Amino acid sequence: MDVFEGIYTRRSVRDFSGMPVEKEKLQEILKAGSWAPSGLNNQPWRFAVVSGSEKRAELAGLTRYSRILLQAPVAIAVFADHSAMYNDTKDQQAIGACIQNMLLAAHALGLGAVWLGEILKNAGAVRDVLELSEHLELMAVLAVGYPDRNDQVSTRKMMPELLVKEF
Amino acid sequence: MDVFEGIYTRRSVRDFSGMPVEKEKLQEILKAGSWAPSGLNNQPWRFAVVSGSEKRAELAGLTRYSRILLQAPVAIAVFADHSAMYNDTKDQQAIGACIQNMLLAAHALGLGAVWLGEILKNAGAVRDVLELSEHLELMAVLAVGYPDRNDQVSTRKMMPELLVKEF
Repeated sequence: MDVFEGIYTRRSVRDFSGMPVEKEKLQEILKAGSWAPSGLNNQPWRFAVVSGSEKRAELAGLTRYSRILLQAPVAIAVFADHSAMYNDTKDQQAIGACIQNMLLAAHALGLGAVWLGEILKNAGAVRDVLELSEHLELMAVLAVGYPDRNDQVSTRKMMPELLVKEF
Repeated sequence: MDVFEGIYTRRSVRDFSGMPVEKEKLQEILKAGSWAPSGLNNQPWRFAVVSGSEKRAELAGLTRYSRILLQAPVAIAVFADHSAMYNDTKDQQAIGACIQNMLLAAHALGLGAVWLGEILKNAGAVRDVLELSEHLELMAVLAVGYPDRNDQVSTRKMMPELLVKEF
């Protein structure tokens, strides 16, 4: 898939078929995430992969979007490693870049994904469920699977609203 | 360019040829940025494009990487619009996703770019130079142009260090 096709046709996928995600595709998504840029190349992102339905159900209990995490065959929890961070703003941006790489990778592989942020309200509980230590801070959860439908539309602001100045 | 080729071969480009950047390519880069995902689709990113050498020189005076901003034909300053934001962490991540889209787009168009974060130490002065109002907060500056060389190498941590847990 072409870079621009990927960027422009990616949608937040919230309905998944029952089809499992191949291990190789999951590895490729994580690898794509890892090739994001970061300040000083500090790579502050860490991943926890949850395919097992029991743990996924526990995560699902921590968000109002539980249906999505119950239906998607894989959840990727993305953490910031405090021991690797150097600047909150820049590290959070880098993790956003990492997530975008993973969303584009999933889309290019014929999968769909959605970026769940609301679950951050229970970041500590997610860390506990996943049995992780305190230097890892939840940044997002991605639900990943084969899309059940491909008819999502989306919109963006027009450029005159976004381009605030030109010199 | 294929999505994965884009992700894996993109490098931070800090040496630029004298060739100017076509207006259409610049527009495509900004458009690609605008198609990033954001929480509640709030699209908190705003762009200021600096092609003029006078303003670019003023920006260059605000970073230790002045050589890069003097040499690159275009600088894209990326701002967060406080009037559009709803959550600092999620909005900064969204802006990171937006920046990654722009870096991938530049690369796919045969251009090169580098993400400058160090200039955030002078965020207020950058806003003043660009004559922007206080609800816009500098998030990054991208230097964009045709690469003068294509031999940059980069490295990433191996997956066992990044994948902290699997269920």
